[in-house]
Amino acid sequence: MRIAITGGGGFLGRRLAGLFLANGHVEQVVLADVAGAAPAADPRVFHLRVDLTDPSAASSVVEGADVVFHLAAVLSGQAEADFDAGMRANLDGTRRLLEAARAAGRRPKFVFASSLAVFGPPLPPVITDETAVHPQSSYGTQKAIGELLVADYSRKGYVDGRVARLPTVCVRQGMPNAAASSFVSGIVREPLHGREAVCPVGTALELWLSSPRAAAANLLHAAWLPPEALGALRIINLPGITVSVAEMIATLERVAGREASARIVFREDPAVSRIVSTWPARFDVRRAISLGFVRDSGFESLVRDFIADEAAEGAR
Amino acid sequence: MRIAITGGGGFLGRRLAGLFLANGHVEQVVLADVAGAAPAADPRVFHLRVDLTDPSAASSVVEGADVVFHLAAVLSGQAEADFDAGMRANLDGTRRLLEAARAAGRRPKFVFASSLAVFGPPLPPVITDETAVHPQSSYGTQKAIGELLVADYSRKGYVDGRVARLPTVCVRQGMPNAAASSFVSGIVREPLHGREAVCPVGTALELWLSSPRAAAANLLHAAWLPPEALGALRIINLPGITVSVAEMIATLERVAGREASARIVFREDPAVSRIVSTWPARFDVRRAISLGFVRDSGFESLVRDFIADEAAEGAR
Repeated sequence: MRIAITGGGGFLGRRLAGLFLANGHVEQVVLADVAGAAPAADPRVFHLRVDLTDPSAASSVVEGADVVFHLAAVLSGQAEADFDAGMRANLDGTRRLLEAARAAGRRPKFVFASSLAVFGPPLPPVITDETAVHPQSSYGTQKAIGELLVADYSRKGYVDGRVARLPTVCVRQGMPNAAASSFVSGIVREPLHGREAVCPVGTALELWLSSPRAAAANLLHAAWLPPEALGALRIINLPGITVSVAEMIATLERVAGREASARIVFREDPAVSRIVSTWPARFDVRRAISLGFVRDSGFESLVRDFIADEAAEGAR
Repeated sequence: MRIAITGGGGFLGRRLAGLFLANGHVEQVVLADVAGAAPAADPRVFHLRVDLTDPSAASSVVEGADVVFHLAAVLSGQAEADFDAGMRANLDGTRRLLEAARAAGRRPKFVFASSLAVFGPPLPPVITDETAVHPQSSYGTQKAIGELLVADYSRKGYVDGRVARLPTVCVRQGMPNAAASSFVSGIVREPLHGREAVCPVGTALELWLSSPRAAAANLLHAAWLPPEALGALRIINLPGITVSVAEMIATLERVAGREASARIVFREDPAVSRIVSTWPARFDVRRAISLGFVRDSGFESLVRDFIADEAAEGAR
């Protein structure tokens, strides 16, 4: 079995690749990314440096793939600041990848990483599978369009698509990024690294979160699900947990002490606040749970997961 | 004031143009269409022959326009049979028109004719503004994508967009067309013209209908509405009436006699039936009514409107 992952250089792509490589039946994992990477130790891993806004790139990604994970995206903050860059990467890029998968004629599984950013006010108290999308950002709009494309390419039999609507993933390793939600991981990760972090929103804000571990496991599960389990509804609201910023900070303090939480500086950023405050924090995920998707036990496990992951990497 | 109408050669575009020309403040009405047309009698009418799949066409349509009505589309049956043609016209065409409107920098009103075809199973008993779209056709998918684009271009301030989700328009004048819903008008129009009509669906099927008169009046109203009335929700489910095929035929018989209804031949068409049976027939349109959109009084008025329109044209 051959796997291709766009955004394969990202923290979620690498984690997903690791899950596949632990499976003996996987012959090749192509990690496609705009950023280059050093050759991998595992001979089954192939780094492909591509820009999906280049018309010829998509076919090199999907060539021979049985499963395509499309994780690459221009993130929410950048897509809002540069509308055209977001449209090219997130709309045209997704469409080109679907077209390449269609042209290859193998009807690959196509797992599209969507986002809670497709939702916006007026929000019901709890999001269900039947809630209309009202994106309040260009990123959310482009993800909602991608969802529609994946569903129609699946209905036409061009791909066997699955849309996984991810919660905000926390605690993300690495550096702050161009996502409006970058602070969500930042206010935990940076203090744990002894650095200052800016919290650009009020502490009462509630978020819908998933650990990287649960997010990667659920993307993998989305690929394994038989098409009959999904029926015509290709979109899955993945499980998450509802946590306020205040609870996040209190948990950080409980786990890592007052010196960690004291490194958080509060400085409202209207642009960030405007985007993330339109995202829902409560979902009815009974369908996802019944389909076998997993959910974190609570925010403390997200913090402890991150600390354990960092320690494991440091030990290598 | 200058108005541009894509699909301006169609029955709805011409009717809409007529409503504008009755208004003394309109200086020019550009009727853009792929089909050519004879010069208009009214000097304010300008026929522009363009193909929106041609990259340079869009700017010639929106140039100088204060209001753009985007009615042009590859219809549902054709978009299903020729996926690429539907994507080019309905997705790329809409996006190009929005881009041209953005580039022109005048922030025109942009009225997008969408369709109940954005909805599909699982359908709630009644569609509301909060019902998720689940298109079961490529046409419906492309319309749903157009809705998202118009909303985001409006949010960004590039256009002042309004999305009017039209019921199936009946009784449409002219010839049968490539819409899966073509039979809906056909089973009334053709018998009234003394011709046979094929009914490709079961008579229990319920439809959500609007007269051409109400549809055109509502598109005009969508353009007049102040942006504050719409708020962030740019999409309006237009009013319609719920009628079964059996009721349509009984009404035709009541208005035009047994010799008319006897011209309907029943021959199930699985392709047509599959598409139209996924469309909803019941909507909660309280918001549209409170915003001033109009609704037909019943199916008999749709039949009598058609007869009166045909008589008026014959008298000219």
